[in-house]
Amino acid sequence: MKWNKKDLLGLEDLSREEIEIILETARSFKEVSARPVKKVPALRGKTVVNLFFEPSTRTKTSFELAAKRLSADVLNFEVGTSSISKGETIVDTARNIEAMKVDCFIVRHSVSGAPLVISKNVAAAVINAGDGCHEHPTQALLDLFTIKEAFGKISGLKVTIIGDIYHSRVARSNIWGLGKLGAKIVVCGPPTLIPNNIEKIGVSVCYSLPEALKDADIVYLLRIQKERQQENFFPSQAEYRKFFGFDSKRINCTKKKFFLMHPGPINRGLEISTEMAEKENSLILQQVTNGIAVRMAVLYLTVRQIQ
Amino acid sequence: MKWNKKDLLGLEDLSREEIEIILETARSFKEVSARPVKKVPALRGKTVVNLFFEPSTRTKTSFELAAKRLSADVLNFEVGTSSISKGETIVDTARNIEAMKVDCFIVRHSVSGAPLVISKNVAAAVINAGDGCHEHPTQALLDLFTIKEAFGKISGLKVTIIGDIYHSRVARSNIWGLGKLGAKIVVCGPPTLIPNNIEKIGVSVCYSLPEALKDADIVYLLRIQKERQQENFFPSQAEYRKFFGFDSKRINCTKKKFFLMHPGPINRGLEISTEMAEKENSLILQQVTNGIAVRMAVLYLTVRQIQ
Amino acid sequence: MKWNKKDLLGLEDLSREEIEIILETARSFKEVSARPVKKVPALRGKTVVNLFFEPSTRTKTSFELAAKRLSADVLNFEVGTSSISKGETIVDTARNIEAMKVDCFIVRHSVSGAPLVISKNVAAAVINAGDGCHEHPTQALLDLFTIKEAFGKISGLKVTIIGDIYHSRVARSNIWGLGKLGAKIVVCGPPTLIPNNIEKIGVSVCYSLPEALKDADIVYLLRIQKERQQENFFPSQAEYRKFFGFDSKRINCTKKKFFLMHPGPINRGLEISTEMAEKENSLILQQVTNGIAVRMAVLYLTVRQIQ
Repeated sequence: MKWNKKDLLGLEDLSREEIEIILETARSFKEVSARPVKKVPALRGKTVVNLFFEPSTRTKTSFELAAKRLSADVLNFEVGTSSISKGETIVDTARNIEAMKVDCFIVRHSVSGAPLVISKNVAAAVINAGDGCHEHPTQALLDLFTIKEAFGKISGLKVTIIGDIYHSRVARSNIWGLGKLGAKIVVCGPPTLIPNNIEKIGVSVCYSLPEALKDADIVYLLRIQKERQQENFFPSQAEYRKFFGFDSKRINCTKKKFFLMHPGPINRGLEISTEMAEKENSLILQQVTNGIAVRMAVLYLTVRQIQ
Repeated sequence: MKWNKKDLLGLEDLSREEIEIILETARSFKEVSARPVKKVPALRGKTVVNLFFEPSTRTKTSFELAAKRLSADVLNFEVGTSSISKGETIVDTARNIEAMKVDCFIVRHSVSGAPLVISKNVAAAVINAGDGCHEHPTQALLDLFTIKEAFGKISGLKVTIIGDIYHSRVARSNIWGLGKLGAKIVVCGPPTLIPNNIEKIGVSVCYSLPEALKDADIVYLLRIQKERQQENFFPSQAEYRKFFGFDSKRINCTKKKFFLMHPGPINRGLEISTEMAEKENSLILQQVTNGIAVRMAVLYLTVRQIQ
Repeated sequence: MKWNKKDLLGLEDLSREEIEIILETARSFKEVSARPVKKVPALRGKTVVNLFFEPSTRTKTSFELAAKRLSADVLNFEVGTSSISKGETIVDTARNIEAMKVDCFIVRHSVSGAPLVISKNVAAAVINAGDGCHEHPTQALLDLFTIKEAFGKISGLKVTIIGDIYHSRVARSNIWGLGKLGAKIVVCGPPTLIPNNIEKIGVSVCYSLPEALKDADIVYLLRIQKERQQENFFPSQAEYRKFFGFDSKRINCTKKKFFLMHPGPINRGLEISTEMAEKENSLILQQVTNGIAVRMAVLYLTVRQIQ
């Protein structure tokens, strides 16, 4: 089987085979960033545009480096100072930039579905870098890559995702990806932050952290968005920490060797204690490292389709 | 005849032959952006600086891509956070950057003549990317290029420019360029937005849109700057749309096959209806595409002078 | 002797020999910016990160150009929109970026010692681009380079540094560097802006400008930070200009041929008159030119250590 999509909009749309093609391609690109000369000519003379309608440094930087290591030209389109603020629609903006003969848009937007709308209106590749509460597919792909690297497999593992499942595009993409690759998924958090009927997409719900941690192979902590607290989704940070914060007292809940993951940036002392963040079973920095390889793979596979 | 100027400050200063050299050079560069590897080594090892004192994304991006496709290094000098806000003069700023051995400044400034002042104080090439209400020469050059591509010629065509002529550097540069290449120019808009005595530089004035459109080969719509309305140059957007907005009712005013142009970004439903913007006779996106080729040509011709 | 440090945090830590290695390496790189193709492949495939927690255009731009002329990939990490504003520590930020396999951090921070803290927590090279009132080593190195170019030597010269010594990291780094290379240093300014006991690090203090200028080979003017005046470190700009401003009346204070230096941007009419800034004995623009060569040298020497 071969990759044949010009866009990557989410993991819900991908088959198990397509996900595995991306992970395998990423494996071959990971070695590039370990070389003294971290560069391959794969996308030389291609133009990749970071089209971020929401502020982001980490994800944008990761895509920028991935594109540069493939020798592409990268353009950071600054939406704040752009025509968008003059009332232009996102489709007009994308079409106008496309007219400059660019090959790929990396789109982040606060509205779910914005990358899909753009992808339908341009011939260039479109990669979703996070849209509203919908999906963040490259984050989930780098998580899958990191889990596979740690365990040699994904199928049969128990992955416990803890935190604000309701608003998390990271959780949503991971649930699709982990499910397709055969992991058992448990979500855990305050009842106000777990969507109704989420069991229907193949996950178990557990409101008690000790129980959710039992036999977990991966403990995946989501970032608590402090602004959510103003919206009263949970009573206080202290209460969240008490019931769902991961610290040294929680280690004994799982008898197995397990690994800790987090999409970053971490809130030390809230969803994770400083001590835990520094433990040797933390995969947090390896997730960041693997982000480059996975994004190189996604850029390479999609942009090749439009040549 | 050969190009021998280190700067491009406006079309008023250029001869017909000089304009034609730029257009011909652009024609040979246009093909680069259609290649799989969109890059030529023409300006490798040269440094091009985007020195924008007014916010801009579209023009800056176009110049940045043009420079990168010529393999130049591009530096976006952020004026907001720069020494300018510490009270430095624009000449000191330019001279200081020039001391870093840069080859070209692309200057946008709200004050007419600012690029000229800089050009007199640096040995590097200076390209005007829009100064006050004065000129925006690369916009007019890409417009000329697009017209020539559509009709195979410019001489003898009737070009009707509609909107705020008074404040428009785009209009001004187009009037110089079109005039030198032999087009007949009609300007049309509310009397408050047409400069007195503009006939003296070789254009006809017409306050009635239907009449101005008669026999037009090119209908060139300017962007309405919504902030102008606060200054009471026209009573309301609704009134502007009624008398000067281009929509399906206007098509019959011109009997010929004509093309629609706009420097972007468009205000859908104000100076142009959505339906018209999408018509097959719109050249709007081709203008954007040709902007890259024209800017590559201008960068190439001017920077070569200072080697 | 060979360079063997992965970081450049300040000139206080360097030996005379280490400083001379940097100056000699810079001399060989200076020629690169005079070539038609201003580029060498020394750092091809390396990633250099501008990590600026304080706004800066000039220094950031100089490092960016230096890195590009060595063929490195440069990443401008925008702290304003980054995770820092989400409460992440600077060490977490640096470690996360490092996980993307970057080779060098160029750090500017308002807190003295911030680059040191980062350097202890990453394997990548760390270059201090200015930390609080502590050091700005590349500025002092480019000043040393410029002095040596002008006089053929540094040892035995009299350098008079005028202005706000108290808050100046430029002065501090220059005092270390000039001292190690054998210059005689005089500092001059209002008593409120001269640190107590500064004589202990080997400089003479002089509160009278005419006396301080006597027999000076280099007159080094510091920039007056206008915001300091609100803090009442000196009564008024007019008074500062009267007693410490450098204008044509001051020329006769030094009988020798001397050169004028300033780290930029200059306040015309405050610490320096317009007439003096334009004189042929001003080295101000040569300092800027040499900044590229010195930063190329520092990048090259440090990044090579971590290969």
